[in-house]
Amino acid sequence: MKHALPVTRDQDFAAWYQAVIAEADLAEESGVRGCMVIRPWGYGIWERMQRLLDDAIKATGHENCYFPLFIPLSYFEKEAQHVEGFAKEMAVVTHHRLIADGKGGLMPDPAAKLEEPLIVRPTSETVIGAAFARWIQSWRDLPVLINQWANVVRWEMRTRMFLRTSEFLWQEGHTAHATAAEAQEETLRMLEVYRSFAEDCMAMPVVAGEKPENERFPGAVETWSIEAMMGDGKALQAGTSHFLGTNFSSAQNIRFQSAEGQLELAQTTSWGMSTRMIGGLIMVHGDDDGLRVPPRVAPWQVVIVPLLRDGPDDGGIVSYCKQLQVELARQTAFGEPVRALLDLKPVKAANKRWNWVKKGAPIVVEVGGRDVAAGAVTWLRRDKLYTDAGKLASSAQGREAFLNGVSGLLSDVQAELHATAREKLDRGIRRDVTDMAELETHFAEGERFPGWVELPWAKPTGAALDAVVERLKPLKLTIRNAPIGAGTPQGACFFTGEPAVERILVARAY
Amino acid sequence: MKHALPVTRDQDFAAWYQAVIAEADLAEESGVRGCMVIRPWGYGIWERMQRLLDDAIKATGHENCYFPLFIPLSYFEKEAQHVEGFAKEMAVVTHHRLIADGKGGLMPDPAAKLEEPLIVRPTSETVIGAAFARWIQSWRDLPVLINQWANVVRWEMRTRMFLRTSEFLWQEGHTAHATAAEAQEETLRMLEVYRSFAEDCMAMPVVAGEKPENERFPGAVETWSIEAMMGDGKALQAGTSHFLGTNFSSAQNIRFQSAEGQLELAQTTSWGMSTRMIGGLIMVHGDDDGLRVPPRVAPWQVVIVPLLRDGPDDGGIVSYCKQLQVELARQTAFGEPVRALLDLKPVKAANKRWNWVKKGAPIVVEVGGRDVAAGAVTWLRRDKLYTDAGKLASSAQGREAFLNGVSGLLSDVQAELHATAREKLDRGIRRDVTDMAELETHFAEGERFPGWVELPWAKPTGAALDAVVERLKPLKLTIRNAPIGAGTPQGACFFTGEPAVERILVARAY
Repeated sequence: MKHALPVTRDQDFAAWYQAVIAEADLAEESGVRGCMVIRPWGYGIWERMQRLLDDAIKATGHENCYFPLFIPLSYFEKEAQHVEGFAKEMAVVTHHRLIADGKGGLMPDPAAKLEEPLIVRPTSETVIGAAFARWIQSWRDLPVLINQWANVVRWEMRTRMFLRTSEFLWQEGHTAHATAAEAQEETLRMLEVYRSFAEDCMAMPVVAGEKPENERFPGAVETWSIEAMMGDGKALQAGTSHFLGTNFSSAQNIRFQSAEGQLELAQTTSWGMSTRMIGGLIMVHGDDDGLRVPPRVAPWQVVIVPLLRDGPDDGGIVSYCKQLQVELARQTAFGEPVRALLDLKPVKAANKRWNWVKKGAPIVVEVGGRDVAAGAVTWLRRDKLYTDAGKLASSAQGREAFLNGVSGLLSDVQAELHATAREKLDRGIRRDVTDMAELETHFAEGERFPGWVELPWAKPTGAALDAVVERLKPLKLTIRNAPIGAGTPQGACFFTGEPAVERILVARAY
Repeated sequence: MKHALPVTRDQDFAAWYQAVIAEADLAEESGVRGCMVIRPWGYGIWERMQRLLDDAIKATGHENCYFPLFIPLSYFEKEAQHVEGFAKEMAVVTHHRLIADGKGGLMPDPAAKLEEPLIVRPTSETVIGAAFARWIQSWRDLPVLINQWANVVRWEMRTRMFLRTSEFLWQEGHTAHATAAEAQEETLRMLEVYRSFAEDCMAMPVVAGEKPENERFPGAVETWSIEAMMGDGKALQAGTSHFLGTNFSSAQNIRFQSAEGQLELAQTTSWGMSTRMIGGLIMVHGDDDGLRVPPRVAPWQVVIVPLLRDGPDDGGIVSYCKQLQVELARQTAFGEPVRALLDLKPVKAANKRWNWVKKGAPIVVEVGGRDVAAGAVTWLRRDKLYTDAGKLASSAQGREAFLNGVSGLLSDVQAELHATAREKLDRGIRRDVTDMAELETHFAEGERFPGWVELPWAKPTGAALDAVVERLKPLKLTIRNAPIGAGTPQGACFFTGEPAVERILVARAY
């Protein structure tokens, strides 16, 4: 069977991933090292994600703020003293002016060297912590619940569009609380916001759980994540929520007078989700014809392609399509007006169809002279593109019936994408691996879809944990998380033989 | 009469401006030179502005994208050769790693010096132009209509919150067209989008017109602006739209094959509006009690303050207020659900009231035990805070009547703020100044509200224009723009005596 992409997932998953991004016009290399240009279709998906996640963040009582892009070097010196594993790959601003270099070019002006270098924020704990220290005096000021949508920069040596770029877009939540219990509750509340956003909006099934000690955010007491299974069986960490205890508040002196009059350190949290999630979207829902975008996050849910032939019927077809677009926008799907586009670009209709298939618009409607005469529409749904016989599965329907059914149709597409991915995730987790030899065989090179393995775990720490990490390394495996609700395991830890206290997922990961 | 701010506009306008920002919790100094923290109330206003302006930008056919924060130095070298007046105060990234400095601190790692410095974008013409050159091959690819919401950095020596900060937030539109006529049409279309956004959403009357040659964006063929009149009579440029002709497309080689098969340079435009507009909002609508936020951009349009007395009635008051909040959210104002907040912070009710007055929430509802008993509400509208006798003008109303009327009430507040500002702008423009001596007298130091002066103008260029600029400089005046619709003037140019071809506004400006 022929497909729209030049390479299939089976042939070369990594090349397929790049092909989806190029053919769906999601993003491209910018000419600036490690930074990408997010094109309208990719950015439109991000805007939909932002809107839905932002609503959920606000519904849980958080307010948005904006903090500076630049953080003075001294803030990091304070953190470096407190935080082990502090990462140092950051963009450093040292000058504030260019001058002519005398050779027809420009150079940083030596006379405009900054006294203290500025760091382009890799995350904002330090600068937000400094603000918290100003804002918080008394228990009456708590909790402080804020969020920021921003660009951040972490210098990366090897980059990959959406998954690992030097600059990326994200939201970072930062909160301060009077007690550890409240901060822990917040940490789990936001983990649940991420889980439900991933499942309900992105149609992306995930496993929520706690990261092992070695995978914690530097300075965190607990790190929780949601993990999604990609089309090649690898895991992608799709969102994290950290309980920071008093590690950051003591570094930044965030103290408050309690109701009892004591001076106490605030308990803080932070949590973030980024444009990396779009990489996940591609690898969960993409197929050999391109991307498939779940309707809730699709910039356009229905795209109308008029079948024009430079003939006398064209005027009638275009006005029929315009009317259809207006009527679609009067319908409601997921509580919002249906987003319908009429594609009038001067491009051949067949090219347009395949363009929208590759982009993954949930429904593509094609309208020709015969449809106009019959008061009908012909449509494809992107999640079920082919018949069992391998032909394009187009449906013809009366226009009224289509309009009345479009809301349900979009819900179906959303549910179907989720169900397909859910089934793949469930099937992709093995729970019956009992010894290291079996684990090695399972993850042997050449296995096309090894998925994940869930194992009983005694929660070793320190050197015992390091030993486990070392044993997993040759298999390129990491511990993803200890899933919430995996149940208390019976028996012994897979690695240490001690009594197991929880279950963990091990997998290869992006 | 007593007022809520520690300083009035009459006493010291500049100090009053800072006081509004502090007392309304809009923003604060960040500890990072020239960068501010935008606090929830300030950022909430920006989010409302973004949403409304973004809708208008999309309704005119533009799509959002995202381009890199960093721009390689070489891109600016190309521009510097093409563009006179190219500004060089920019943040320069020279290193990508920190290391320990051996004295307990950190420093840029000399081994991680970038081969080519990166500039933090001051605006994105160069990097977007490079993308346009990749995207545009044929007339079929035109027009390209894109917009970006982003942070930008221009190193500023003297900063002032919102009005002039090193980092600020904005949107920048960039478009490419096949003909100059289409690009000019686009330039004016977006100017009109800005004008109507300012007037209709921000309740901020503006004058739209063309900037004189000396005030053009470097590289622009035409620069158009909207200018708003601040509370002290100065002008604020609140948005600009540039017709760039082929100046940028020739520097960046943006060419297309025309329908006739010729290789032609694209005609481009750019246009932007920023967080500076919030500074304008403060200085147009603020009064001696703080900010007044027009309902369309107010994060909360109605704030409910329960009058609690730690007594047995408190429970009943809170549930009455909660119900009121729910019912308010069922009402519609400006086509959206009413945004109502119930303020339950552990703070005295009188403090809360003044807090919301200073923040400028359009309507503040106060609910006490008596209101609950009577099924009533007591409310203040922020735009008409006092009676003629100088008392707080609170209104008591049955709850149903209030709910039924709240949409109209919010429309009234919006219209009233606009009308007040409109009248002030109209009164603030003198058109009868006939000679330089009169102009000098009008703008003599000590004049508290000099406003603007409109003058006939022969549109001098080059040295003749420079001479005019020099004559205005001692009066601290600049030419703001030549208003659209000011009519063709009769008589002679105020400055050159030659026949006038248009009218211009001169004013002091931020």
